[in-house]
Amino acid sequence: LIKAYILSTGNELLLGTTIDSNSVYLSKKLRELGIKVIGKITVGDTRENLESAFRLAISSAEVVICTGGLGPTFDDLTKEVVCGLMKCKMQINQEIVDNLKAYFISRNRPMPDNNLSQAMFPPEATILPNRFGTAPGMYLPVQQDKKIILLPGPPCEMRNMYVEEVEPRLKEDFNLQQNKSNTRIIKVFGPGESQVDQILAGITKEVDKSNIALLAHDGEVHIRITAEDDQENSSEVLEPIVEAVKVKLKDKIYGYDNDNLVSVVVQLLKERGQCLASAESCTGGLLSKLITDMPGSSEIFWGSVVSYSNQAKMKLLGVSPETLENYGAVSRETAREMAIGIRKVSGADYGLSITGIAGPDGGTKTKPVGLVYIALAADNTCIVKELRSRGNRKSIRIISTKSVLDLLRRQLLAGGISS
Amino acid sequence: LIKAYILSTGNELLLGTTIDSNSVYLSKKLRELGIKVIGKITVGDTRENLESAFRLAISSAEVVICTGGLGPTFDDLTKEVVCGLMKCKMQINQEIVDNLKAYFISRNRPMPDNNLSQAMFPPEATILPNRFGTAPGMYLPVQQDKKIILLPGPPCEMRNMYVEEVEPRLKEDFNLQQNKSNTRIIKVFGPGESQVDQILAGITKEVDKSNIALLAHDGEVHIRITAEDDQENSSEVLEPIVEAVKVKLKDKIYGYDNDNLVSVVVQLLKERGQCLASAESCTGGLLSKLITDMPGSSEIFWGSVVSYSNQAKMKLLGVSPETLENYGAVSRETAREMAIGIRKVSGADYGLSITGIAGPDGGTKTKPVGLVYIALAADNTCIVKELRSRGNRKSIRIISTKSVLDLLRRQLLAGGISS
Repeated sequence: LIKAYILSTGNELLLGTTIDSNSVYLSKKLRELGIKVIGKITVGDTRENLESAFRLAISSAEVVICTGGLGPTFDDLTKEVVCGLMKCKMQINQEIVDNLKAYFISRNRPMPDNNLSQAMFPPEATILPNRFGTAPGMYLPVQQDKKIILLPGPPCEMRNMYVEEVEPRLKEDFNLQQNKSNTRIIKVFGPGESQVDQILAGITKEVDKSNIALLAHDGEVHIRITAEDDQENSSEVLEPIVEAVKVKLKDKIYGYDNDNLVSVVVQLLKERGQCLASAESCTGGLLSKLITDMPGSSEIFWGSVVSYSNQAKMKLLGVSPETLENYGAVSRETAREMAIGIRKVSGADYGLSITGIAGPDGGTKTKPVGLVYIALAADNTCIVKELRSRGNRKSIRIISTKSVLDLLRRQLLAGGISS
Repeated sequence: LIKAYILSTGNELLLGTTIDSNSVYLSKKLRELGIKVIGKITVGDTRENLESAFRLAISSAEVVICTGGLGPTFDDLTKEVVCGLMKCKMQINQEIVDNLKAYFISRNRPMPDNNLSQAMFPPEATILPNRFGTAPGMYLPVQQDKKIILLPGPPCEMRNMYVEEVEPRLKEDFNLQQNKSNTRIIKVFGPGESQVDQILAGITKEVDKSNIALLAHDGEVHIRITAEDDQENSSEVLEPIVEAVKVKLKDKIYGYDNDNLVSVVVQLLKERGQCLASAESCTGGLLSKLITDMPGSSEIFWGSVVSYSNQAKMKLLGVSPETLENYGAVSRETAREMAIGIRKVSGADYGLSITGIAGPDGGTKTKPVGLVYIALAADNTCIVKELRSRGNRKSIRIISTKSVLDLLRRQLLAGGISS
């Protein structure tokens, strides 16, 4: 397995205002070749920090790719630093000088002297032409089959040079082939990360740990399974693990790869020719927004009432004033009447409802922030669930929304509800 | 000058699919304290790579902040690695064990044994409580006034812990003060970037260009004005430029700095003691979601009908079948009846409506994707506007939503509508 380290240089990348999209691009492209990116470093344009970053990268990986710092100005140091560390001597390359002169003549501008630094290269390096700028790149083989690759910082120059000049060389030098996708993602809603970890303990012990990773986000746990070897047998490696995970997690798994809870529920409803309407209080339209993010959702979505006031609950959903008076807007009883109410007014197969306290204000001792009731009404039946979420307003709203979608998903799959 | 190194851990950050937003956030926050971030490293969850990354960071900077790897699972190693490098012994902390147990009891779930690893800390560390998850953070003073800080990976947990637990300690330990902001942002909705650029041509020529930057995003243009020197006299530099921009752009400016269109409209309504209800078709709840993102919006927001089907338009909003038959769901007439309908059923001061074709399907030659009608109903009056947006489903929905908010904002300011 070939390992790579990515370096990004530039003071602007350390200010918290610029995203380093180059390293994201390179990670993806290297992974396609089956090269494992083991680390990324971003440093500013000082010699000392550049040197320590290159030292770490070169000692850890076979492929070191650095973007930025190839320009003509005083703070463009990467080539100098690499040649210093590797004890290579730079010489002026006349062909590059001629190219630079031609570039400036074609733009009717005089060439500043400091551009000559861009024509200095060690003789053992392959110089990589830059079709979109003045800074050539460098592909430098060093001891023990390692390669140090320097690319310009501007993304369009970098990407073009990577695809045209670097990728073919890496393929040849390391005898690599472009991978088909060698990752599967299994998506779970409900149990927490540590619970999933425990359920999968037997599997994670058996397989190489670096092949399975858990990622928790917004109430979901994603299990990412990667085949590290060449792609020839990647499905042979992946599928048994996927099957083993399926056996353990059963219906806690809601989908795979590009699925999300909405796309899964929409698909299930389409298959059944059924439709849905919703009534939302604390989520304020988020459920409806997520459903309608999907093109074509009108086929299964009647619409929604965002009953942010008690008045709206009574007027549009038929929640009774007594229920609101006796149990409050955040209660099992109100959630039930909201779900039944929207189902009735819409004539949809399913009515979903959400009512709760998203915070930061409005919580009490008996009804704290994070207390949410969700309900699903179908023909002759209505299921109500109580949720107690931690987190802030945003995460409470997201988790509540996903919970009601998952409630419907499970019922559709269980076939326990018909309409 | 205090130097910092930021570490991010997690295999998923090296795949080219996930952006490391944590390090961007931390860079910005550290800069606010005057701490200089000299480098960032991202590594996967292997002991060897974590160790070399920590070694580099600790040898280069006084403040080392690492996010991720504090969970209870097998690939959560950061605490162990740091304690190994620093030769600190971890012990079980009974208070944290009790907190963890209480956390799981409150969720009615058994605590998996592997969560106990989250209660192991060296005695010289300060344990940082996590209000939104199970993984506590750690603030570890080491030799030569250095601090190693470990934070959880999920952004909401990390941010909260940084603001509440880390920032105050850094200020105290390094005797730092928060910088005052030396940036003003002027926010414009309506005209495009080049139009704003042209309107401001006189100003941008006068002042140093690096002090003014235009940023276009989702139909808005933000004018960022920065004072480059120390903050002592930053307002003296900034305010004359802000005033000159105001004179040029007038009511095209909707707000400043942290304002957004929703916050501005909510504030105007609160000042007037008025309230709002909405009826959305193609935006599917987005308007309602954005309004209710704001805590306290219930004061001015009655609720919304997401009338995604014609049935919903007729049944809940009283749009007449003849209007839908003769003009279609996407028409001036339907937008008008939706706005008047929701105002009537809600009794709110203002009724807003949106109906259009967000695409990618559903467009025709006479009614293409991007054709949207918005309306504002008030006492005895209803304004309807036609929009023709380019872009994809997402941007059409966002621009339509902002347009109807801006329509209400202008009317509220002009005083042309009363109810």
